[in-house]
Amino acid sequence: MPLTDRDLSTILDDCAREARKEIGKGHVADYIPALARINPDQFGMAVCGVDGREWVVGDSDSSFSIQSISKVFTLALALQSPGASGVWDRVGREPSGNAFNSLVQLESEQGLPRNPFINAGAIVITDVITTHFVSPVLQILGLVRRYADCEDIYIDEEVARSEEESGHRNAAIAHLLKSQGNLVADVDDVLAAYYRQCSIAMTCRDVARAFLPLAAGGRHPLTGETLMPALRAKRINSLLLTCGLYDGVGNFAFRVGIPAKSGVGGGIAAVIPGHFAICVWSPELDELGNSLAGTRALEIFAQETNLSVF
Amino acid sequence: MPLTDRDLSTILDDCAREARKEIGKGHVADYIPALARINPDQFGMAVCGVDGREWVVGDSDSSFSIQSISKVFTLALALQSPGASGVWDRVGREPSGNAFNSLVQLESEQGLPRNPFINAGAIVITDVITTHFVSPVLQILGLVRRYADCEDIYIDEEVARSEEESGHRNAAIAHLLKSQGNLVADVDDVLAAYYRQCSIAMTCRDVARAFLPLAAGGRHPLTGETLMPALRAKRINSLLLTCGLYDGVGNFAFRVGIPAKSGVGGGIAAVIPGHFAICVWSPELDELGNSLAGTRALEIFAQETNLSVF
Amino acid sequence: MPLTDRDLSTILDDCAREARKEIGKGHVADYIPALARINPDQFGMAVCGVDGREWVVGDSDSSFSIQSISKVFTLALALQSPGASGVWDRVGREPSGNAFNSLVQLESEQGLPRNPFINAGAIVITDVITTHFVSPVLQILGLVRRYADCEDIYIDEEVARSEEESGHRNAAIAHLLKSQGNLVADVDDVLAAYYRQCSIAMTCRDVARAFLPLAAGGRHPLTGETLMPALRAKRINSLLLTCGLYDGVGNFAFRVGIPAKSGVGGGIAAVIPGHFAICVWSPELDELGNSLAGTRALEIFAQETNLSVF
Amino acid sequence: MPLTDRDLSTILDDCAREARKEIGKGHVADYIPALARINPDQFGMAVCGVDGREWVVGDSDSSFSIQSISKVFTLALALQSPGASGVWDRVGREPSGNAFNSLVQLESEQGLPRNPFINAGAIVITDVITTHFVSPVLQILGLVRRYADCEDIYIDEEVARSEEESGHRNAAIAHLLKSQGNLVADVDDVLAAYYRQCSIAMTCRDVARAFLPLAAGGRHPLTGETLMPALRAKRINSLLLTCGLYDGVGNFAFRVGIPAKSGVGGGIAAVIPGHFAICVWSPELDELGNSLAGTRALEIFAQETNLSVF
Repeated sequence: MPLTDRDLSTILDDCAREARKEIGKGHVADYIPALARINPDQFGMAVCGVDGREWVVGDSDSSFSIQSISKVFTLALALQSPGASGVWDRVGREPSGNAFNSLVQLESEQGLPRNPFINAGAIVITDVITTHFVSPVLQILGLVRRYADCEDIYIDEEVARSEEESGHRNAAIAHLLKSQGNLVADVDDVLAAYYRQCSIAMTCRDVARAFLPLAAGGRHPLTGETLMPALRAKRINSLLLTCGLYDGVGNFAFRVGIPAKSGVGGGIAAVIPGHFAICVWSPELDELGNSLAGTRALEIFAQETNLSVF
Repeated sequence: MPLTDRDLSTILDDCAREARKEIGKGHVADYIPALARINPDQFGMAVCGVDGREWVVGDSDSSFSIQSISKVFTLALALQSPGASGVWDRVGREPSGNAFNSLVQLESEQGLPRNPFINAGAIVITDVITTHFVSPVLQILGLVRRYADCEDIYIDEEVARSEEESGHRNAAIAHLLKSQGNLVADVDDVLAAYYRQCSIAMTCRDVARAFLPLAAGGRHPLTGETLMPALRAKRINSLLLTCGLYDGVGNFAFRVGIPAKSGVGGGIAAVIPGHFAICVWSPELDELGNSLAGTRALEIFAQETNLSVF
Repeated sequence: MPLTDRDLSTILDDCAREARKEIGKGHVADYIPALARINPDQFGMAVCGVDGREWVVGDSDSSFSIQSISKVFTLALALQSPGASGVWDRVGREPSGNAFNSLVQLESEQGLPRNPFINAGAIVITDVITTHFVSPVLQILGLVRRYADCEDIYIDEEVARSEEESGHRNAAIAHLLKSQGNLVADVDDVLAAYYRQCSIAMTCRDVARAFLPLAAGGRHPLTGETLMPALRAKRINSLLLTCGLYDGVGNFAFRVGIPAKSGVGGGIAAVIPGHFAICVWSPELDELGNSLAGTRALEIFAQETNLSVF
Repeated sequence: MPLTDRDLSTILDDCAREARKEIGKGHVADYIPALARINPDQFGMAVCGVDGREWVVGDSDSSFSIQSISKVFTLALALQSPGASGVWDRVGREPSGNAFNSLVQLESEQGLPRNPFINAGAIVITDVITTHFVSPVLQILGLVRRYADCEDIYIDEEVARSEEESGHRNAAIAHLLKSQGNLVADVDDVLAAYYRQCSIAMTCRDVARAFLPLAAGGRHPLTGETLMPALRAKRINSLLLTCGLYDGVGNFAFRVGIPAKSGVGGGIAAVIPGHFAICVWSPELDELGNSLAGTRALEIFAQETNLSVF
């Protein structure tokens, strides 16, 4: 029996109510000033169905910094770029079992990042894009706008500058990759593109819409456009499930059971194949860097809809 | 449009034909004599539907050593044992990013194994069972027989002895766990139970039947018995997907997209929730310890049925 | 101008006075009950000259558990055993940069312990002895008695039993070595010999005398016996300096500048080549496992005699 | 019986003859073009006595790139700089048990390099100098010239440029240190100074003279100048012995037994306290980065003079 509009509205209210109870238990990302200043008392959620219906609750139209959620878009871009055939020779597809910004594994595994969603892997993916496109950032932004069906999406340049100034760990990763022969473009060029893609600002509704193609076998329900082959959508979903939540993928799969990608801006984008794309946002993070209230909201959603991939 | 018997038969033939091409490219597990002697030129596959239908191909009725597939049964037993409430305080739920028998992570993470499917985690689970049951091995065997709906399943004592004699790495893990305070029972008792559970011999058909409850929300389609709550079945499936194939989970999810558990005896048990439980078996392994032909067969099956969790 | 007896007496008084100020700042080894019960308010020191003179202060005639100091004796025995030629193929000669009982390096370096003074290395050395002598423990005890010129030295069987019961980490190391092919004898036999050698009880005077051959180019000043070639004495001294104080060798060399070996019983044996063998003992340890007051006493001794190897 | 001039000449001839047999067994450092081009068939050695005598053999007056030998000079400078008091809070004094350019330990030990002679430690030391002097490179060069009693010593700017262009691993280390809060100055400024100090060109005779103060208790025998307190000279010697030869310190102490510092340019500077400062140079390295022929020459020298610190 399909879920009615009313069902969904009730479920989203439940999600918001339960999720808001988590606010106050975590901490806002403080490693860059532009993120540390945010009001933690916010929660938004948007759900887009593959049939075109949409439901929202809370601060679903407030812009937030998507941060690592951008890694899904850059991967999608790289996989349709002229450099696509080399991507999986340069980045693995395994969960890391380590913090997202660790250099240890990179050193012991000779410069092959474990997956495209840890920083090292995303920097290699950004290198693919930087190498194959004249204006890599415009290409990324263009893809995001097309996926979200929204021309207003922009890069928060203040956040990008802030990232760059405080980004010594990412610079360390990029230089290590360069020394290991897994970075083609100039280190500074790659980092500039990397920081700017992380600083894209979007609303929950934007992000949920932008993830719809992954829920709908590659086709965009709102525009009718086929954005990627169905098999590629499946594969990206598999990477979300095994690598999308840093060193918390296993627990998230256990509790929520839905492919998802988090960002330290407090957003989590999630995909229930054949049904929904979802975005939740609340700035406070758990110790692994995933939104506390966002995780809780998705857990409630999976429970009440009885939808998970398992 | 549901798959007909004829569809399935054709698909299984395709799986067997493609899978057999992999034979000769891997190597049989050689760390214990009893496994090293096996004829590598074997392939079997069994598929059980949640509606009770079954299809088989190849050596589906030959007994093989289930090895690490047993870890799913011991986890199921521990979760219904008097020690259930403490399980997740003693074992994590994250992929390891390391070889299945590594001690490194155990040392750096103070004796908390990353998940119940690496050796360290399975030894802790066996400790739970050893501590809470008078005859732990009989309990495990009893559960396996009930799940497989078959009283003929036995422990291959020659394999068990062989494991014990050559099991110094597992003994190292168990002693390290003991020194870290995460082993309650006597080390030798736990290891004895551990080796015997790994040495259970089953056919593909047995294993596929035994995994049916995970595909059918906890109920056994053949016996009508409810063997675990639906939520627990979902959660075990999530652990299979994120932790079931050693350090190859990500690639397996990418290529196949189905929750599964492999063993170095060459078996792989897989679950397509709501549809099928599957077991493939072929002794030659890839460098991570997963059956080469078995992986290929499941990849073909997922492609041709267009069924995966993503 | 050589040091007079009076000089030495004054210096030892200074050492004792300054060293005693450290008592109360550390903690007694508590991992085995037999050691944890010791009265921490004890300090002894004995200095033996290569010319046969001796000076003592404090509790220099109280017996204590020599623990890892025994590793120097077992190394000396292995190097004169029929297995001598293979020793350096099975154990390295590099500082570990890790805790003395770590398993991490052993796993990443395929079973070759970094040096004979970490537990893994000492267990391999004990294996050499166990393999080549019918009564390995009697051989070790015999060597110690000959080096110390004292027939009263004994094994504290209560400590040995206590070590064995709580020695799961050492058992883990031994089993890992066995699985890596770097242990020939039976694991339990090697561990039994290992625990018993660690449990030898000696006084400061005994230990200082037993280290005299290392200070005197291999000859024993008290007995006139040549116990090892001069080159071997030099080489063992070099190992003491680079590997003798667990992960504190660098600081010890910086502060004290004398080859030495510590034990968690609170003893430190030290060698000033051409001059003195020294033993200090005080049960409280720093966080690396080296006697706090003992280290301080040796620092004062090196300062006031202006003798160090640098 | 002191060594005569004739003894020393004979010994140096022996050293050269034996050392030259090693040429052809190693490989020249190839990570920067300016070093890879060097003629490997060269060997030079200079010995300076604390009494002012000097002996040389082979290519002892050819300039070579001192590379990591410079780390001893920058440490000496930092320890007499206004930043001296903070040095040991920011850098440890323990051997690393790892490759000289590893990032692993830095990450796991929160940005505290193990010692001043691995790259991470030397970069922190360079930061101390960069922070406290207006012209850090001129200060280093000035100290080297004063220690070597030679105004002709220069920086090979071609090597420095080559280092900078290929120095991504060092850049990774510096950025990681910056992100961990253990780098005060601008990353690029520190790296520029670091690369230039490594590129100082000296002859064996220069280096041997420059190390004389370490052999002579801080006083320079040739100039009569006191360059550092005697205790500091001892302490630097201790660091040379425990940390001066990368991950080969233990073997070097075992075989040679003399405090020393190597560089990938093929030079090794060594100190026999109270007797000699020595420099050998031959470009081919062993797998750890230490000059093969240089190590052999020092081994022969220690044997024939019967001088070592043990």
